Amino acid sequence: MKIALDAMGSDRHPRPDVEGGLAAAREYGVEVLLVGNESALGPVLEELHPGSASVRIVHAPDALTMEDKGLALALKAKRKEARNSMAVGIDLVRSGEAQAFVTAGNTGAAAAVAYFRMGTLPGVERPALAPVFPTKRGSCVVLDIGANPDCKPENLVQFAIMGVIYAERVRGVPQPRVGLLSNGEEAGKGNQLIKDTYPLLAASGLNFVGNLEPKELIAGEADVVVTDGFSGNILLKSSEAVAKLILELMRERIQAAPPWVKLGGLLVKPTVSGIRKMLDPTEEGAAPLLGVDGLVFIGHGRSDAYAIKNAVRVARLAVEAGVLEALRRGIAAAASAA
Amino acid sequence: MKIALDAMGSDRHPRPDVEGGLAAAREYGVEVLLVGNESALGPVLEELHPGSASVRIVHAPDALTMEDKGLALALKAKRKEARNSMAVGIDLVRSGEAQAFVTAGNTGAAAAVAYFRMGTLPGVERPALAPVFPTKRGSCVVLDIGANPDCKPENLVQFAIMGVIYAERVRGVPQPRVGLLSNGEEAGKGNQLIKDTYPLLAASGLNFVGNLEPKELIAGEADVVVTDGFSGNILLKSSEAVAKLILELMRERIQAAPPWVKLGGLLVKPTVSGIRKMLDPTEEGAAPLLGVDGLVFIGHGRSDAYAIKNAVRVARLAVEAGVLEALRRGIAAAASAA
Repeated sequence: MKIALDAMGSDRHPRPDVEGGLAAAREYGVEVLLVGNESALGPVLEELHPGSASVRIVHAPDALTMEDKGLALALKAKRKEARNSMAVGIDLVRSGEAQAFVTAGNTGAAAAVAYFRMGTLPGVERPALAPVFPTKRGSCVVLDIGANPDCKPENLVQFAIMGVIYAERVRGVPQPRVGLLSNGEEAGKGNQLIKDTYPLLAASGLNFVGNLEPKELIAGEADVVVTDGFSGNILLKSSEAVAKLILELMRERIQAAPPWVKLGGLLVKPTVSGIRKMLDPTEEGAAPLLGVDGLVFIGHGRSDAYAIKNAVRVARLAVEAGVLEALRRGIAAAASAA
Repeated sequence: MKIALDAMGSDRHPRPDVEGGLAAAREYGVEVLLVGNESALGPVLEELHPGSASVRIVHAPDALTMEDKGLALALKAKRKEARNSMAVGIDLVRSGEAQAFVTAGNTGAAAAVAYFRMGTLPGVERPALAPVFPTKRGSCVVLDIGANPDCKPENLVQFAIMGVIYAERVRGVPQPRVGLLSNGEEAGKGNQLIKDTYPLLAASGLNFVGNLEPKELIAGEADVVVTDGFSGNILLKSSEAVAKLILELMRERIQAAPPWVKLGGLLVKPTVSGIRKMLDPTEEGAAPLLGVDGLVFIGHGRSDAYAIKNAVRVARLAVEAGVLEALRRGIAAAASAA
C-alpha cells in the first residue's frame, strides 16, 4: 500500500511531516510518498536516517499556503500542470500510484484541489469534511464541519449516508446511530434546514435517532452527527476554543498560585494531560473529505510528527476497509432507492 | 423600583426563586414581587423569615413548564385572562406596576409570553436573547442565542444595534466592538446570511470589527457578537457542554486515581472552582430578551438562589440605566437613518 503525504503541509513543514511519514512507514508497513520540494525534503529525510524504511520523495516544487484562497486558489487547484504538493499528491491517487492522500495543509486548499482534480463520486453533490469528535463514551463522526457553509436537506442526507459508511468501515461501529445537530432535541426544533431534513432522515432507512444538541453529542448518543458546514464549524471551533481556554486558565492560575497549589498542579498533571489528550484533535490525526473520488485526509495545521503518523494510520485503515468502494456503492444504492 | 420575579420558574421552584428574590430585596434595595401560587409561596417565604424585607407575593395560580410548547403554548401566552406566573409577571410590567420581569423558567415560554403580551419595540421585527459570555479579558454579549433559528441580514443588524446599547448602558463598555460570528475571520467567509450581513454592518456606523470565529470571541476581540439563533445556540450549548465535560472528567478521574493525585486535586480545587465560577452562567444570572416592549430577563432552569439574586441585580442595573428607552431611541434612529 502506498500513501501520498504532503510534506509541505503542516505549519512547521517539512520536518513534522517527514518525521511523521517516516514513523508511519516504519510502524504500519506502508510505503509513504513524501510529496514536496526535494531540495527541502532531502536533507531533512537524510538527517532522520531513513535506513531501509519505505519512504520516497516525489518532487513538487511549489506549495499552497494559508494565503491561497478564492479564485486564485481555484486556478492553482485546477490547472493541469499545477506542481504544488497537494496537486501532485492528489494526482498520485488519481493515477492509482497511491491509494490515499494525507495533508496537514490549508483545509480549504486541500478540499479545492481534491474537488477539482478528482471530482466527486457519482451522485455526490457536495463532499463533506468529517472529523471524529471525542465523546464521554468514545467518539462520533461529525459532518460537515466546514466544506459547505450553505446546505440543502438532500446534502445532509447524503452526509448521513457517507458518515455511516465511514463509521462502520473505519471505526468498526455496527449500525451507527445518526443524529441531526439542532437547537433542541424534539422533532420540530431547528431552523428551516433542520425541519426539512428531519423527515428525510426519518424515512431514509438509516438508524436515525433524531435531533441532538451538543450535550447529547458529547454524551455519546450518536455515532454520526450531520450538520451544515457553517454550524458544524461553529461546533468544532467553539469546542476547541473552550477546551483550550479552560486548560490555559488552569495552567496560568496554578503557576500564579502559592507553592502548595503548584504542588497540587504537579500531582494532577498526568490526569489533566490524559484529558487534554482525549480532547486533542491530533490523536485522530486527520479528517476524511468524504464524497470526492479518492481517499483524502486533512489534518490540523498545527500537526506534529505524532499527528502526521496518526493521519497516515487512519488513511491506511480506510484503504484496507475499502471505504471508497463502499461509499460509491452506498451513494448509488441510495440514489436508486429514491 | 419594583422587579416582578417568577417564583415558579427554576427547576426546583419555588424555593430558590423565593430565597433569591428575598436576598435581592435585602441587598439591592428593590421591591421584589414574587409571582406564583400563594399557597405554595407563602409557607416558603414565611420559613425564610422575610422580616421587613421588601417582598410581596402576587398570586398566579398556574405555571408554565418545560412541557409547554407549540400552539398550546402560544394560546397560553396570548390569552388575556391567562393566570400563569409568566403572564401575570409580564402584565405587572405592562401596567407599569413593575419595571422588569425576571424568570428562570422555560426560555421558549418566557419569550413567547413576553412577545405576545408586550409586543416589540416599534421597528423591531425579532426580539433576541442576549446572554453574556465569559472571555479571557472579560465578557461579551452574544445575540441571538435561540429565539430566532432563521434570520435575515436585517435582523442581525438590529441585533447589533440592541447589543451595543445593552453593552454600553448595562455593562459600561464605551464604543462596543461588534463582531459577526463566522467560520473564518476574513471578509467573504461565512454562509449566505453572513456574506449578506457583513456589508450592512460595515455600513452601519457601528464599531464593526468584522467576522469572528469562536476563538476570537473567547479571546475577547469583541464586546458584542451577532449571530442567528441557531448558530448562536450551537455556540452556547457546545461551549457549556465542553466545559462541563472537562470539569466532570477531571473530578471523576481524580477521584479514581491514587491518593497523591487526590491530594493534588484538593490543592488545586480552589483554582478549578474559580475557573468553574468564571464560566458559570449563574454568575450573570439571566439574559435579557432585547427588542420586546419591556425589560425581561430569562435565567437558566438550574438557577439556584444565588443565580436568581444575580438575575434581579442585572435587571435592576438595566432599569437604572434606562435600557428600554435607549433601545427605543436607538432602533428609531437607525430606522430613520436607513
